[in-house]
Amino acid sequence: MSVLRNASIKTSSSISYALASILGPPLTIPTRKMSTECQFVQAPHKLLVIPGPIEVTDEVLLANAHPSMSHMSPDFARVFGDCIRMTRQGHEIMVDLAAEHKLTRTLGWDQVSANLVEPGENALVLHSGYFADSFADCLQTYGANVDQIKAEIGGAVKEADIESALQAKKYKIVTVTHVDTSTAVLSDIKAIANVVKRVSPDTLVVVDAVCSVASEEIQMDAWGIDVVLTASQKGLGTPPGLSILVVSQKAVQVFENRSTPVTTYYASWKKWLPIMKAYENNSAAYFATPPVNLIYAFHASLKQIMQGSVSLEQRFKLHQEGVPLSEDVRANGIFYFPDGFTASDIVPRLLKKDVVVAGGLHASIKDKYFRIGHMGVSVVDPSRGDIDKIISAVKESFAEAKASKQ
Amino acid sequence: MSVLRNASIKTSSSISYALASILGPPLTIPTRKMSTECQFVQAPHKLLVIPGPIEVTDEVLLANAHPSMSHMSPDFARVFGDCIRMTRQGHEIMVDLAAEHKLTRTLGWDQVSANLVEPGENALVLHSGYFADSFADCLQTYGANVDQIKAEIGGAVKEADIESALQAKKYKIVTVTHVDTSTAVLSDIKAIANVVKRVSPDTLVVVDAVCSVASEEIQMDAWGIDVVLTASQKGLGTPPGLSILVVSQKAVQVFENRSTPVTTYYASWKKWLPIMKAYENNSAAYFATPPVNLIYAFHASLKQIMQGSVSLEQRFKLHQEGVPLSEDVRANGIFYFPDGFTASDIVPRLLKKDVVVAGGLHASIKDKYFRIGHMGVSVVDPSRGDIDKIISAVKESFAEAKASKQ
Repeated sequence: MSVLRNASIKTSSSISYALASILGPPLTIPTRKMSTECQFVQAPHKLLVIPGPIEVTDEVLLANAHPSMSHMSPDFARVFGDCIRMTRQGHEIMVDLAAEHKLTRTLGWDQVSANLVEPGENALVLHSGYFADSFADCLQTYGANVDQIKAEIGGAVKEADIESALQAKKYKIVTVTHVDTSTAVLSDIKAIANVVKRVSPDTLVVVDAVCSVASEEIQMDAWGIDVVLTASQKGLGTPPGLSILVVSQKAVQVFENRSTPVTTYYASWKKWLPIMKAYENNSAAYFATPPVNLIYAFHASLKQIMQGSVSLEQRFKLHQEGVPLSEDVRANGIFYFPDGFTASDIVPRLLKKDVVVAGGLHASIKDKYFRIGHMGVSVVDPSRGDIDKIISAVKESFAEAKASKQ
Repeated sequence: MSVLRNASIKTSSSISYALASILGPPLTIPTRKMSTECQFVQAPHKLLVIPGPIEVTDEVLLANAHPSMSHMSPDFARVFGDCIRMTRQGHEIMVDLAAEHKLTRTLGWDQVSANLVEPGENALVLHSGYFADSFADCLQTYGANVDQIKAEIGGAVKEADIESALQAKKYKIVTVTHVDTSTAVLSDIKAIANVVKRVSPDTLVVVDAVCSVASEEIQMDAWGIDVVLTASQKGLGTPPGLSILVVSQKAVQVFENRSTPVTTYYASWKKWLPIMKAYENNSAAYFATPPVNLIYAFHASLKQIMQGSVSLEQRFKLHQEGVPLSEDVRANGIFYFPDGFTASDIVPRLLKKDVVVAGGLHASIKDKYFRIGHMGVSVVDPSRGDIDKIISAVKESFAEAKASKQ
């Protein structure tokens, strides 16, 4: 439980500006007004600061209320094409200039498991929390032989262990959860990819970046990452419903050289790659109707991220918060701060103050922590006052909980 | 090509009030004001009358712009629960009081193919157009042996042929496309289910009702239908992104008695059934993050359909339009009216008048017809003036095309 002790508000040096402000004045954050020309204002609501879905901007919500459009129309094809190109171009969001793209609403795990691994092939899953178990389950469903290397709770898998595993057996893919929200562990995907390239260069490196894209740096090309998979409702600041993948040319080649047919229909890259290529060239193509409105919303959010007044560097800096086992593996996007209290002391009190946080997720420490999502517009746009609201609510809730125990 | 001749504006007796009005005055339709208390008004846009996505109401779009909500919150659980209950209760929309429900955003075909048919089992696909080929492809992907009975273009599969096929071989499922938008054929699913129950009572009846739910009558229980699958963007009047299934208890039992594991992860009922049961009881459960905003939109649309001033009977009546091979198999939801013209004579002219229709889809007649979607709010709410706008635009476009050929 050292993770929890280390993580407490009073002792951890990795407490962010937001939580540190409970103990002192907040750091200066650049001010920015985001919705000056926007007439639509979203309805008053509880502040949502779970590890996703996250708060989204008025512009993004308005785009989600776009009038019905044909998925085959040139207008929509241009918007979808923009999304693919912005995803491709967003070098430090999730980049591979040479990459193939896929962007649908089914889960990325199925896509990886069904398209890149053939039945009977080996997959190595690096386990730093809850989500690795699910990815392993998914891989096995599609016939992979899965080995897992499990880190201690609150830690990341050690490079030496990865090296030994790769030397002992030939793996088709290695998967790693970039940020596991059940433990707030940030895995060093650059170092991991490096080990893989050195010891087993044919092995594909797959990063589950659901909770890290647009809040943590990812350099696909430079670091040698083959798949980055994520979802719309986290750092990308869009309502939930899109599964987004960026795939290297190498991985596409591995897919194309399969000796067995793909055993999924909806998640098959054979079906989707021609569609994505068509839309990237601003022409419509049909396999299944894409979630048109949500793609308008995604477009609005990507534009804000790519062309907004907050640079990507600044964006990553603003996200550099979180509290796991040690500084080296802390995630930038989630807070943990148990403090001798249980979640039930704090979460209901926060809810009464209209702040929605998430309970624990990792089975063995479930009740001992709670999670504050810390991504996107809540972090980047101080004019909303989200961080201040969280800080006051947390302060008051702890004070109330303390008082109630005396 | 008798389908096309029969379907021409001048000769077919099945021409709707809308198109008949080109030749005479429109019939009386009940007036209804839908958005009196709604402040949000969707942006001006081209009128979308393809076979889906369809026009949606301001209320539905505003619900799609609902502020971010936790998928695990009691508030959202209640809304999702409402959706499941309304779907269950909507006796004539898609009904089975004894049914299990599933409502996700992956394709229904994958769900049926992966959960109800085990590798090596037989599936009989009734082919009345484009979509049967895709369903057959999907079934084969998951290991089914597929036989197809193909109707002539513009016709439905004959009951006698279905009977012979069922007598010759044991089939796990029979699939039928209720309305195939590539041919506008409406299959008589009541009669088909009847044949199946008589000749092969163990065989499950699966209806691809993507283009018919909420515009055609479906009585699951009474007719003996095991799966009705549809999507949000058609008669249910919601933006695209949800795949909606209603499944009979019998089908759930068949699923539970499988001897082989399900080979999909995301579309597995083993994963989703507990989630849907939890939400139906207003409590949240997690397998994958549902598209929260879209479910708010779906909720708004279901409420309008179930509790609106237009009864379901009236709704079906208003949809009774369309023009395939004969009166018996005409679909209520799509128009075809080639008239010596090709699509390229008309479609671009309609587009200039801000009316978006769809081109042909069935490969062998692709260029010889075009499709006007005729579902949902455009049909049910005359105060929008959508039908009038279509009629004028079609009238003018035909006149212009005629003039340009003289």
